[in-house]
Amino acid sequence: KAFYGEFLINAQGEDVVAGIRTPQNLTKAARQSAQQAAQQAAQQDNMSNDAPSMEEALPQAYKQLVAIYKKLETHYRDMQDIEFTVQNNKLWMLQTRNGKRTAKAALKIAVDMVAEGLISEEEAILRINPTSLDQLLHPTLDPNAVCEVIATGLPASPGAAHGAVVFTADEAEQIAQTGRKVILVRMETSPEDIHGMHAAQAILTSRGGMTSHAAVVARGMGRPCVSGAGTLRIDLEAQCFSAAGHTVKAGDIITIDGSTGRVILGSVPSLQPQLSGDFAKIMTWADARRRLKIRANAETPLDAATAIKFGAEGIGLCRTEHMFFDADRIMAVREMILAETPDARAVPLARILPMQKQDFVELFRIMDGRPVNIRLLDPPLHEFLPKSESEIATQAKASNVAPAQIIRRINELAETNPMLGHRGCRLGLTYPEIYDMQARAIFEAFFAVQAEAKRQPVLEIMIPLIFSHRELDAMAQRIHNVADAVRAEHEKQAEHEKQAGHEKQAKHESMSLNYEIGAMIELPRAALRAGDIAKTAAYFSFGTNDLTQTTYGISRDDANAFLAPYIADGLLSGDPFVTLDQTGVGELVEMAVARGRAQRADIKLGICGEHGGDPVSIAFCESIGLDYVSCSPYRVPVARLAAAQACLRAKK
Amino acid sequence: KAFYGEFLINAQGEDVVAGIRTPQNLTKAARQSAQQAAQQAAQQDNMSNDAPSMEEALPQAYKQLVAIYKKLETHYRDMQDIEFTVQNNKLWMLQTRNGKRTAKAALKIAVDMVAEGLISEEEAILRINPTSLDQLLHPTLDPNAVCEVIATGLPASPGAAHGAVVFTADEAEQIAQTGRKVILVRMETSPEDIHGMHAAQAILTSRGGMTSHAAVVARGMGRPCVSGAGTLRIDLEAQCFSAAGHTVKAGDIITIDGSTGRVILGSVPSLQPQLSGDFAKIMTWADARRRLKIRANAETPLDAATAIKFGAEGIGLCRTEHMFFDADRIMAVREMILAETPDARAVPLARILPMQKQDFVELFRIMDGRPVNIRLLDPPLHEFLPKSESEIATQAKASNVAPAQIIRRINELAETNPMLGHRGCRLGLTYPEIYDMQARAIFEAFFAVQAEAKRQPVLEIMIPLIFSHRELDAMAQRIHNVADAVRAEHEKQAEHEKQAGHEKQAKHESMSLNYEIGAMIELPRAALRAGDIAKTAAYFSFGTNDLTQTTYGISRDDANAFLAPYIADGLLSGDPFVTLDQTGVGELVEMAVARGRAQRADIKLGICGEHGGDPVSIAFCESIGLDYVSCSPYRVPVARLAAAQACLRAKK
Repeated sequence: KAFYGEFLINAQGEDVVAGIRTPQNLTKAARQSAQQAAQQAAQQDNMSNDAPSMEEALPQAYKQLVAIYKKLETHYRDMQDIEFTVQNNKLWMLQTRNGKRTAKAALKIAVDMVAEGLISEEEAILRINPTSLDQLLHPTLDPNAVCEVIATGLPASPGAAHGAVVFTADEAEQIAQTGRKVILVRMETSPEDIHGMHAAQAILTSRGGMTSHAAVVARGMGRPCVSGAGTLRIDLEAQCFSAAGHTVKAGDIITIDGSTGRVILGSVPSLQPQLSGDFAKIMTWADARRRLKIRANAETPLDAATAIKFGAEGIGLCRTEHMFFDADRIMAVREMILAETPDARAVPLARILPMQKQDFVELFRIMDGRPVNIRLLDPPLHEFLPKSESEIATQAKASNVAPAQIIRRINELAETNPMLGHRGCRLGLTYPEIYDMQARAIFEAFFAVQAEAKRQPVLEIMIPLIFSHRELDAMAQRIHNVADAVRAEHEKQAEHEKQAGHEKQAKHESMSLNYEIGAMIELPRAALRAGDIAKTAAYFSFGTNDLTQTTYGISRDDANAFLAPYIADGLLSGDPFVTLDQTGVGELVEMAVARGRAQRADIKLGICGEHGGDPVSIAFCESIGLDYVSCSPYRVPVARLAAAQACLRAKK
Repeated sequence: KAFYGEFLINAQGEDVVAGIRTPQNLTKAARQSAQQAAQQAAQQDNMSNDAPSMEEALPQAYKQLVAIYKKLETHYRDMQDIEFTVQNNKLWMLQTRNGKRTAKAALKIAVDMVAEGLISEEEAILRINPTSLDQLLHPTLDPNAVCEVIATGLPASPGAAHGAVVFTADEAEQIAQTGRKVILVRMETSPEDIHGMHAAQAILTSRGGMTSHAAVVARGMGRPCVSGAGTLRIDLEAQCFSAAGHTVKAGDIITIDGSTGRVILGSVPSLQPQLSGDFAKIMTWADARRRLKIRANAETPLDAATAIKFGAEGIGLCRTEHMFFDADRIMAVREMILAETPDARAVPLARILPMQKQDFVELFRIMDGRPVNIRLLDPPLHEFLPKSESEIATQAKASNVAPAQIIRRINELAETNPMLGHRGCRLGLTYPEIYDMQARAIFEAFFAVQAEAKRQPVLEIMIPLIFSHRELDAMAQRIHNVADAVRAEHEKQAEHEKQAGHEKQAKHESMSLNYEIGAMIELPRAALRAGDIAKTAAYFSFGTNDLTQTTYGISRDDANAFLAPYIADGLLSGDPFVTLDQTGVGELVEMAVARGRAQRADIKLGICGEHGGDPVSIAFCESIGLDYVSCSPYRVPVARLAAAQACLRAKK
């Protein structure tokens, strides 16, 4: 906290602002500190002059100014940005307003003012822009560095990083393993690129919006990402991209600023985030005042641990398909897809089972008794199949089939509109073995964790993309059957151990397999039929990404061509994939809430779309009484603060 | 009307049914007529015997039987199917039920019974299954012909036809021009195939459902179509397909039965439809009793004329994009799409304008004062671009650009989910020149038709795929501007002619350009926001195909993989693209009707999806008080009857 400012003698205000003259300091302390710094740096082009401060040059006016600024800050109870002039030794105040501040400064000012008794903790909470917290959670570019910007895309995922350019996920992984930092540059990413995105420091795409695959996944991972940098011309054959007259080859170093969307030549130094005491204090105050629980969308151990570090109270969306893309299991997954009969599918599924079980064991350990909402396989199967000729050849060899057979299957599974295709529970119903395997992996993991004397996991199993209760009922029945089978196996095992006098037996008996089955409400018809669905569903999780896509009839992947002009022309007041559309999509959510509650008064309600991390959308979730929001791990602090603000504003 | 039946002496009923013995006739007249026919045909394997009829062999019992059947038919007021036995000369009645009948017989029986005073006209209307009329409007296979069925697909569009197999639309057109009948065989069809579908006698596809492109377009054209014949293996390189062990080469003759889904080797004779007096009479009775107006989905002169022949009262959906695929204009359309600036687009648009205008002139002439609801361009632009290398080369030459430029544009416009992509009014808003051109073509056609002293067309201009009133407002404003411009030009022209003493001048002045702007309600959000939309929209047309796709989150093009198992497992009670889902999609329609009417009491409401030709869906439209349904021309009689039945049932 300090009084800071600049002035010029015999000049107008614009001379200070324009920067054509070097202004003088207000306080003597500031002048001395600036001189000292200049001497230490022995800067040649030192712009600071040793002109006297206002405190020294105009002591009377200065004294008056200090009195007035203190009065103003006390009156407005906030840091003031003031303008003044002195004419014939008389002080004239020209303007005062609340001062702009960085997120870090905002935290400090709010916490200081509470300490000074100037504002309450509630006011402190309300003064922080939740979205601005994002700045604090990621590395930022050194503001003093010189940057040669060669392209600007969308600030898809905050943070800054530099590395060597690579054009494929496999290369990203290989080069990263040698210890080099890489930036993955793609036209757009797909689920197949996940391992490369994990390996990369940052992701840059020439296509796709704020909610493209690259953007959503990068935010979830906390990787910086610039998406839709449309001026990039990527030439995969020549292994280079061009932009703004520069040609950048594979291996060249670039820097990505995901907070501003800038793509910069070379390596720019960045500053690491510092979660200071002020941040923690505000978060504690916020947590005491929010009603909404905050969960995170996470499936990897790293994401889950990050989520807990940022204060998540559970997992609101564990996308099991992300677990299928690991290099060591994608082969088995593909064999499962290539199989033409349930019997043939059983073989690779049996290989996937222990890996998937291990995923859940790790997740349950990390989450340590917090709820985990597991969504069964959702994307269409063709997303898992190889795309390039060489990938097809590799897979054919591994699976011992002809490449032509794989190509035929790829063609069979190709879809015109995959977003509305053979995915979600439609897979579960036509390939029931897959969901059976997943349910078994979950239940076996449950007992495995228990055997290790950890806290009992709270299991939620969610069926995606239902449009009627019939689908949920059919899937629930199969899951119950699997649960019964695993429970029986477990009891038999316990009995064996008991007879063998094994010590763990008592513990085994004390634990019963509990789980809840829920519905992902992400299609308009599911929202309309929520009453029927709630007969079986213990909870709803609103998948507002897909619900927005279907309610608006907009494919996020294809929206770039018209979303920006729509917003520019006022046809949309904002991107409905960023802030929930309350009057359209929101009405469907409200209807589903009302109908769900009418059927089952204690139904648990949450949201797991991207909107779960957006403050305006969180306020809407508060207003309709949802139980929790779930967002990407790096948005959890944003959501905690936004949820508290929503509560405080609702009280007013 | 005759008493007809068979019996056997010293036998059980199953001997008659099983066909192992040749039964005897009931009546003497029938026996004589059968003998006569056998003698005339000099049939060697004549199965008819000269065993006496029941009338001759058991005269007492026969007399009693005649009295009883007459009593039963009078009592049940319908043709009866009875079973009896005679034991020791005593007649025992075993069973009676309403007799099964073909559509043609149903019409005759109903009309006869009205003439006999047995039933009322209302009852006659209610006794005909509307869907069965479809049988009467199309050619059918000779039921006595021997058929070698090599595949069975979905009965996508009724009627039977045979011809030589061709595998591309271009070949279909070329060979058809030589006078040969062809059957177009495709994996699936796209808008580019329209000219080939027009040229073909029938269409056969190995993929796609009842509502695939091939099925929908074929029904609209009245072409027989079998879709989704999944056992067909089409080999385009070898120019053949295989099925059930047969290999059928290009040029081989096959027969398609679109009413049953059968694909038959060789040429099977078919019977032409005969719209007898009974059909016309029932239709007249039905028309007098229905409230719903019936329109047709049509854009070509042939379709419009067919629609009127079948009794359509207007066009409910004129899909202007179908007018873009004609060979002589697709080049200009593509140039328009390849253009990168509005100025560059203006050149090809100016070439398309007179052609599009002429389309409307012809349509308005044929419709002769009936309303025509014109939907502005709807599909994504990439649907118009060439696909094969040779097409790209041809287009590049014609447009004087490098093929690479066309390929780049194709890649730019490619979409992940085109159904939810850059289409409908999103095109109108980002490429306003296109809609401007279309509006101008409509208005100029209006004045052109008037100049020829025809009846004034009733213009409805519909904006597709809106999700908010803002899009409609913006488009309406542009259309008003075009209308003002064309009106001013017309008035100036009239003034010129007046000064030149031209005679037509008086007529010109008497006509004013009236048109209505409407909204296609085909996205859930448009249904939810119908109140706002009705401020600008004079009418709503429910596009229930797309509304079903978005409400369910199902792409019709991709639904084959799971729709059939869903229906088989009872997860869906039927195909929601055939019969409107009343509890989901229907609720959205009802909400839109209520909100639209609350805003504008006299708003005109219609439906133009495939459901407009489905009797159960028509009953729903009647129940919620829509003004009209629109369906493919060949479904118009079905809709007229179904609408009358809905009214009569509602009265009860």
